Amino acid sequence: MNANRIFNFNPGPAALPISVLQEIQESFLNLGGSGMSILEISHRSKEFEEILNDAIIRTKRLLQLDDNFQVLFIQGGASLQFLMVPLNFLSEGKSADYVNTGTWSTKAIKEAQILGKTIHVVASSEDQNFSYIPKNIRFHEDAVYVHITSNNTIKGTQWARFPDTGSVPIVADMSSDIMSRRLEVEKFGLIYAGAQKNIGPAGVCMVIVREDMLDLVPPTIPTMLSYQTYASKNSLFNTPPCLAVYTVQLVLKWLEETIGGLEKMETLNHKKATTLYDFIDSSDFYQGTAEPQSRSLMNVTFRLPNEELEKQFVQAALEQGLGGLKGHRSVGGCRASIYNATSLQAVESLVDFMKAFEKQNG
Amino acid sequence: MNANRIFNFNPGPAALPISVLQEIQESFLNLGGSGMSILEISHRSKEFEEILNDAIIRTKRLLQLDDNFQVLFIQGGASLQFLMVPLNFLSEGKSADYVNTGTWSTKAIKEAQILGKTIHVVASSEDQNFSYIPKNIRFHEDAVYVHITSNNTIKGTQWARFPDTGSVPIVADMSSDIMSRRLEVEKFGLIYAGAQKNIGPAGVCMVIVREDMLDLVPPTIPTMLSYQTYASKNSLFNTPPCLAVYTVQLVLKWLEETIGGLEKMETLNHKKATTLYDFIDSSDFYQGTAEPQSRSLMNVTFRLPNEELEKQFVQAALEQGLGGLKGHRSVGGCRASIYNATSLQAVESLVDFMKAFEKQNG
Repeated sequence: MNANRIFNFNPGPAALPISVLQEIQESFLNLGGSGMSILEISHRSKEFEEILNDAIIRTKRLLQLDDNFQVLFIQGGASLQFLMVPLNFLSEGKSADYVNTGTWSTKAIKEAQILGKTIHVVASSEDQNFSYIPKNIRFHEDAVYVHITSNNTIKGTQWARFPDTGSVPIVADMSSDIMSRRLEVEKFGLIYAGAQKNIGPAGVCMVIVREDMLDLVPPTIPTMLSYQTYASKNSLFNTPPCLAVYTVQLVLKWLEETIGGLEKMETLNHKKATTLYDFIDSSDFYQGTAEPQSRSLMNVTFRLPNEELEKQFVQAALEQGLGGLKGHRSVGGCRASIYNATSLQAVESLVDFMKAFEKQNG
Repeated sequence: MNANRIFNFNPGPAALPISVLQEIQESFLNLGGSGMSILEISHRSKEFEEILNDAIIRTKRLLQLDDNFQVLFIQGGASLQFLMVPLNFLSEGKSADYVNTGTWSTKAIKEAQILGKTIHVVASSEDQNFSYIPKNIRFHEDAVYVHITSNNTIKGTQWARFPDTGSVPIVADMSSDIMSRRLEVEKFGLIYAGAQKNIGPAGVCMVIVREDMLDLVPPTIPTMLSYQTYASKNSLFNTPPCLAVYTVQLVLKWLEETIGGLEKMETLNHKKATTLYDFIDSSDFYQGTAEPQSRSLMNVTFRLPNEELEKQFVQAALEQGLGGLKGHRSVGGCRASIYNATSLQAVESLVDFMKAFEKQNG
């Protein structure tokens, strides 16, 4: 840990690998001998083209995507994808299935409805405050896609295995767990992920789309809302957020070259989450809020005996250099977000702090 | 000029003040004692709230906006605004006037048409390859707005004075000249500007909207495409592009504290443009392409006697540390973009180089 840096458990924007930040910092006035900052180079320059294409190649290699998939970079975050997905894929007479597992799924459902599209909410865990992932869901065979949120940052739940949707492709919001584990890519028609949790900073959304899904896109929708625009122009129809794409490239490089790929990342993430959950389960002072089988490996949500103690906990942790532990303002409590760039050492430090805090206040 | 930095005449993303880049670089691992990078802090943190609000206050002060105006930050660039403007303001039965002064106006017109909105192209300079700004235009009194592109980066033209539209508010794409000169703000209903030319990096668009225009926004459009969403949440409905907003804040601070405000910026920009145009006019080797009365103070477009010489010119300039002088791929020729952050010294160096090149090749 560098002097003055904290262990960052923010839910997003979140911790980034220190080596990535250092590389951006070092090249900030002069990127690769161009004599310009990454903020100043042309998005049509050789320098940026290399960055963009390297980010795409690394994404394909890490997720083992074949040539049936395209990797796009779009602004507007996952929130814009909530409307782009139904706008692009649900023309007149078509419908999609949605599974509601929390705040973000609910928003995705809402945007499809605003557009007047036909969708079916085929399962929901709202009956138990979204503390679990629904099972044994019956999907419509004629659905164009099944929409799920793979990890729920606010409620701390995650699909451990993706549902069997038969021949219907899954469209998944993976904002908070993309690149945290291996994927069975053949199940997916489209994956989208705001970068600011596992793969980069705020300001860019990675979209992975299967070629045949692009055939569904109507020719008459606004240019900036059509996946065809990004697919046909390699995400360079208009000026992309260059620094954000550059950061994603460096994070993926770190993931491949420093961590050693997705399998190793998955093992490490499992170890981090287990370290934290095992301690929580061993304590009567801390209570996990998600159903054990549905627990997220990315966002560990827990409560203390009362809100006053939770407030003290968050504050005392920050004073010890452990930041971002407050739960989402909509649910309260505490949350440790332990995305890819959060080290095992950070998690162990947190557990040590939790033990000490319990001793003092338990 | 710092060692290894070039004079950057890129059309966008473009040069930024070196002091701004240095401040970002210095704080890149630890923003304001937070122990986190600007890429890692929460968008709901005290630190980011201060950055965002300071950017808004400086915008209002620089442009002398009263409380009837709101300043928003939206992703997707000007290209997304092309569709947001008609989607938000043209409900059933309403129409708008558009003036076509080049590539970007043409795109704005196209997006309104894709949405099926009623618009009138009341003037165009397409008849002379967009080399001038139309005059004596008759606008429709019942138009909801008049859309113009205040500066045309590709053709090198600019509205020296904004048209008299009576009581109809102007909606202006000011991506390439925002903050380059003072404004008569009372003429405008909405101003939008992709940041990557005069006020920051790619990845954020500044939108200045007059309160009464917000009353036109229908309640049933997608959340991320509604100005109401950004206005009611101070641009924090979803995660904003934090680094881009931070850079805008620092550029505006530089504009106020180092340059001394918009009047001084305007004077300096005038001097830079005059220096370059006066030299071009004195030469038979270089030919300006825009009509003198319509010339842009931001993008100086010119031709050399033939394309082979233009190619040599761009290459030789780069070898002398003068970058980004190639004209837009759609029109060819040469172009020097001399936005706010491009110094008079850079322009004088360019003129010196142009003289020497003419001597060798003229």
